Amino acid sequence: MCFLDRRIGNNGPIEEVGMGALACIILAAGHGTRMKSARPKVLHTIGHRPMLHHVMALGQALGADRQTVVVGSGAEAVADAARAFDSEAAIAVQDPPQGTGHAVQMALPSLEGFEGTVLVLYADTPLLTPQTLSRLIAEIEGGAAVSVLGFEPADPGAYGRLIRRPNGDLDRIVEYKDATETERASRLCNAGLMAVNAVSLRHHLPSLSNDNAQKEYYLTDLPQMAVAAGGRAAIVLAASEETQGVNNRAELAAAEATFQRRLRLEMMLAGVTLEDPDSTYFAFDTQIAEDVTVAPHVVFGPGVRIAANVRIEAFSHIEGAVIEEGAVVGPFARLRPGTSVGAAARVGNFVETKNTSLGRGAKASHLTYLGDAEIGAGSNIGAGTITCNYDGYEKHRTLIGENCFVGSNSSLVAPVTIGAGAYIGSGSVITKTVEPDSLAVARGRQLSKAGWAASYKGRMETKKRES
Amino acid sequence: MCFLDRRIGNNGPIEEVGMGALACIILAAGHGTRMKSARPKVLHTIGHRPMLHHVMALGQALGADRQTVVVGSGAEAVADAARAFDSEAAIAVQDPPQGTGHAVQMALPSLEGFEGTVLVLYADTPLLTPQTLSRLIAEIEGGAAVSVLGFEPADPGAYGRLIRRPNGDLDRIVEYKDATETERASRLCNAGLMAVNAVSLRHHLPSLSNDNAQKEYYLTDLPQMAVAAGGRAAIVLAASEETQGVNNRAELAAAEATFQRRLRLEMMLAGVTLEDPDSTYFAFDTQIAEDVTVAPHVVFGPGVRIAANVRIEAFSHIEGAVIEEGAVVGPFARLRPGTSVGAAARVGNFVETKNTSLGRGAKASHLTYLGDAEIGAGSNIGAGTITCNYDGYEKHRTLIGENCFVGSNSSLVAPVTIGAGAYIGSGSVITKTVEPDSLAVARGRQLSKAGWAASYKGRMETKKRES
Amino acid sequence: MCFLDRRIGNNGPIEEVGMGALACIILAAGHGTRMKSARPKVLHTIGHRPMLHHVMALGQALGADRQTVVVGSGAEAVADAARAFDSEAAIAVQDPPQGTGHAVQMALPSLEGFEGTVLVLYADTPLLTPQTLSRLIAEIEGGAAVSVLGFEPADPGAYGRLIRRPNGDLDRIVEYKDATETERASRLCNAGLMAVNAVSLRHHLPSLSNDNAQKEYYLTDLPQMAVAAGGRAAIVLAASEETQGVNNRAELAAAEATFQRRLRLEMMLAGVTLEDPDSTYFAFDTQIAEDVTVAPHVVFGPGVRIAANVRIEAFSHIEGAVIEEGAVVGPFARLRPGTSVGAAARVGNFVETKNTSLGRGAKASHLTYLGDAEIGAGSNIGAGTITCNYDGYEKHRTLIGENCFVGSNSSLVAPVTIGAGAYIGSGSVITKTVEPDSLAVARGRQLSKAGWAASYKGRMETKKRES
Repeated sequence: MCFLDRRIGNNGPIEEVGMGALACIILAAGHGTRMKSARPKVLHTIGHRPMLHHVMALGQALGADRQTVVVGSGAEAVADAARAFDSEAAIAVQDPPQGTGHAVQMALPSLEGFEGTVLVLYADTPLLTPQTLSRLIAEIEGGAAVSVLGFEPADPGAYGRLIRRPNGDLDRIVEYKDATETERASRLCNAGLMAVNAVSLRHHLPSLSNDNAQKEYYLTDLPQMAVAAGGRAAIVLAASEETQGVNNRAELAAAEATFQRRLRLEMMLAGVTLEDPDSTYFAFDTQIAEDVTVAPHVVFGPGVRIAANVRIEAFSHIEGAVIEEGAVVGPFARLRPGTSVGAAARVGNFVETKNTSLGRGAKASHLTYLGDAEIGAGSNIGAGTITCNYDGYEKHRTLIGENCFVGSNSSLVAPVTIGAGAYIGSGSVITKTVEPDSLAVARGRQLSKAGWAASYKGRMETKKRES
Repeated sequence: MCFLDRRIGNNGPIEEVGMGALACIILAAGHGTRMKSARPKVLHTIGHRPMLHHVMALGQALGADRQTVVVGSGAEAVADAARAFDSEAAIAVQDPPQGTGHAVQMALPSLEGFEGTVLVLYADTPLLTPQTLSRLIAEIEGGAAVSVLGFEPADPGAYGRLIRRPNGDLDRIVEYKDATETERASRLCNAGLMAVNAVSLRHHLPSLSNDNAQKEYYLTDLPQMAVAAGGRAAIVLAASEETQGVNNRAELAAAEATFQRRLRLEMMLAGVTLEDPDSTYFAFDTQIAEDVTVAPHVVFGPGVRIAANVRIEAFSHIEGAVIEEGAVVGPFARLRPGTSVGAAARVGNFVETKNTSLGRGAKASHLTYLGDAEIGAGSNIGAGTITCNYDGYEKHRTLIGENCFVGSNSSLVAPVTIGAGAYIGSGSVITKTVEPDSLAVARGRQLSKAGWAASYKGRMETKKRES
Repeated sequence: MCFLDRRIGNNGPIEEVGMGALACIILAAGHGTRMKSARPKVLHTIGHRPMLHHVMALGQALGADRQTVVVGSGAEAVADAARAFDSEAAIAVQDPPQGTGHAVQMALPSLEGFEGTVLVLYADTPLLTPQTLSRLIAEIEGGAAVSVLGFEPADPGAYGRLIRRPNGDLDRIVEYKDATETERASRLCNAGLMAVNAVSLRHHLPSLSNDNAQKEYYLTDLPQMAVAAGGRAAIVLAASEETQGVNNRAELAAAEATFQRRLRLEMMLAGVTLEDPDSTYFAFDTQIAEDVTVAPHVVFGPGVRIAANVRIEAFSHIEGAVIEEGAVVGPFARLRPGTSVGAAARVGNFVETKNTSLGRGAKASHLTYLGDAEIGAGSNIGAGTITCNYDGYEKHRTLIGENCFVGSNSSLVAPVTIGAGAYIGSGSVITKTVEPDSLAVARGRQLSKAGWAASYKGRMETKKRES
């Protein structure tokens, strides 16, 4: 998660790990049929980032030396997405799926020669924090053979239970259906994640059995085997919120809500005013400086960076844009990728920008489309101005110098250049270069017919009566 | 509720009812003074549908053979609305109001000759599900004289209580003020709804007494009478959410919230991504196919149908529109009734459509008004294009062929036809037919005055200094 | 709070106070470093009103005879804001800060000669109601030396505790760190606010000691001193919600949410339909009449007054505007300050108005900017109309008479007058007066080149193939 990226840099707060080597195995082979989607489940997004990338970012934040993504048969899109995030990621194919233990077995070859901690993650469980995972890893670095993540939900229902040994360590994981009444009474549930010492993993994994109803190999059998072999199995607790998995779109929405809540709180504590946090949507990588105010109903897509003292008014939609200090954007502004808004500049209502820069103090306040344009500092773009950047085949640029005044309802037919200090008369269609400091006008002359309207109305009223 | 309509078709999941005949009496005579509205309470809407219609739709979903709506004096608007929903609905007038028992008495003549189950519903209690009501009906079909709906609120407060017999059946309903301490300690409350065997209803209704403080006839006295006569009175439990009534606008908003929550969940489980369910508002009849994504802050009015793989971007407002597969709408799009967006077509920001069709792959991406227009497949409508469809008296049509290119900021003065493959120059006002494959331009020529702007600024600065 | 202003006029419901004289001391000297803002904490806004003003409005609602605001060193902005709200407010400077007792000491000189009740408020605790505070005052008027506000949070944590005497009165306030286990077990916490008889205040304040870890003078020591001197110290309970303080921007957002929730409920109970209360944002002074409907996603800035039977459609942004009976606004409308929308008038989608009046029944339905304009009754402003009100130096007015028809995509270059009943042809640039009942057209003539588009496409396709 970007949320993590931003909090944990190279010198981040996770001091207890990073000593030993770390490899991540990310299970991403599930079909996700309950998503009812042509798209693989783990490519559905949270905060505009695929769940798979959120989980790979977790590994990255923890300093993983290598990451292996286990994909299902035919899941080229998933493998491509994994490589797009990290070109060095290993891809393992699990075909057909025979359980989590089998998935990890498929990943083993990619870990050849690796010594250290192996962290097994799920691509559909994107809300874990590196803080929590670092505690899982620290247990392995402290000598445990395996460490398992537990959580205590309000309603433990049919989750598998973690059974403790007298010293508090894990004894074994029991499936709910195999659990005794006493075991079921415990609220300590299995979150499904674990870290394993690479040696233990290689030692025990081949011994997993598929002698069960589903004929699958379960990774959850491993801790008991490690304990039986004299190893230590640790339990690390996570908040229920972190272990939230995604199996349908209602759960996807719930995970998105948790993710947004975290980002909103982080922003507010860092000095951003969110007039209504609940109606503000961030992307995973939104960056906002202090003393920025965001009004209600604002949506951020990816790639936004906002400097101090900016105001984002209500109903703004901002993506791929850099906004400099003291600018005011919105309400009803849409900044599309490639937009740069200069210091103290203004993008107002019903204005769209794309691949466009506005210089310091420039203004486009109303009902305007600026595409593929450069607006010089101090220029004023009148209401209803349109850059005609597309000719049906190609996009062309509009260059407007500093301190220009573009009259309202003008059409600027690109490619076209307007020199610094020039004036464009309202309603003009500008197709040729406008020299600096000149006036350009391109519109019809005003003609009038006295009494025409009165007579027209008379005719129309007569017609209405007759019909 | 449409919510119900969609889940329960002819072969719906309610198997236990529909065997016997069913009549519904819908009480809609309450004044609703706490709504502080000139509009009758039951015509206030939830999901863009009057509460009365939600309740009549319940009866319809349950296969009611006849429905009688009991209205108050002078409530012609309510009677009209009832007939608008179901032209065969019977209307009974209760004037003056003398209690729920009296209301049902007024409805009795409309049930002449009816044998079977009579279900008494309230037009201001619109959130019941047919599943729950079908259990009420099943009790009558199974031999009970009457079946009463109960619920167990967290805080039972001053609700009337259902008093059980030793066998679990209903013994009687007691008003809170008449209840003993022991009776009040029970959380089993009276939801006010009941089903009654038509024979029992006709037998007991005339014996209701108004010997009470309000001098009203209470339907709640009927179960005790049926029991005294040797009949069985059953209790059916509903979730508190379902029995929520509406008496003021805060309760209306609460009911709307519950209704929206149900629709959102239903949509998500069916394969629609709602990036933020809480900011998405559906109408009662919104239909959305799988793998559609709806961004935050989207409002649907009635009459919307969306095919698979469509994206609805943020801040879109859509009503009476059909959107075909793979189209992209918004952000900041407003589709008004009569809009049809073809497959892979695009309606972008600050674009309004009304009574307009866009062909496959057609695009209107920015700041455009398309009213009473047909846009051919593959045509591109430039930014700022306006169809001038209104002459102050009548609306006229604009016909644009396939693969046209309408330059930005054009005005198309209807009625007007633009032939296939034609080009319109930016900023043109088109008043006459444009032939296929031709170019049409209607704008002024660009003139310029060198140095004018510099001199103008000089004059203005001087003026400013002098003032 | 306006919330209060509106509920409590001169003849408001607070009958038990207003008999004796009242002075308020408002502590506003805190640095607010956790806000991470260049702006002083108490000037951050809730419902578009600075927190300081909310608290001063509380004093006003209670009929305070004088108000003293205690500011920190260099906090000229705070002092200015206090005087802007009430030109007669006294300003006391506390420099350096030495505790709440010290702050009140700094305010004492401003109360010279005052007899009656002194109410000590905090400028960062803006959610108290005058109802609650009037009970605090009533205790003083009933003879108590001091009355202290308490609350019972779900988790009392490290709040100071109020220790009762056997008769239920306050014995003393203990800081959490000084409290015994028994004292900590109590959930009755100190909200920090108190009312004090002016005589007691002057008597005890000089005796406060700073003999503590922080070397500060604590106002919370005063009740114990008053009790020791034989006075009575009363406890008044408030809901936790009211005592919510603001120390960072997450708490600011929480206070804003509480404030909005109150306003929404108040509006709904008064007869306003909020289709989705959670997405409707009011300013502190929003006024809305009965039978108005507000659709989801609407934002009100300050200075809005709406008459009965108005519809505000979704995605509207309204500030400084008066809207008369039966008008319809939005969706996607932006009304800026100085807007007046006449009865039954219509402002539609992507329309911005500023300093503009629309007469009865006038319409501006689409994609229009109306700035510094007067639109006569019954006039129709076509889609895409722009008033060109700015020449780069000054703003000019556009005057449009009654029953005019302004064709789509017109530019009205102000200053300009359009006589009653006139017609403007679509796409015209109007720079000169249009006489009443006349037609004005100002646009180019439509020219066409047959086959041009076909040949252009041919050339472009060739170019594409060759590149």
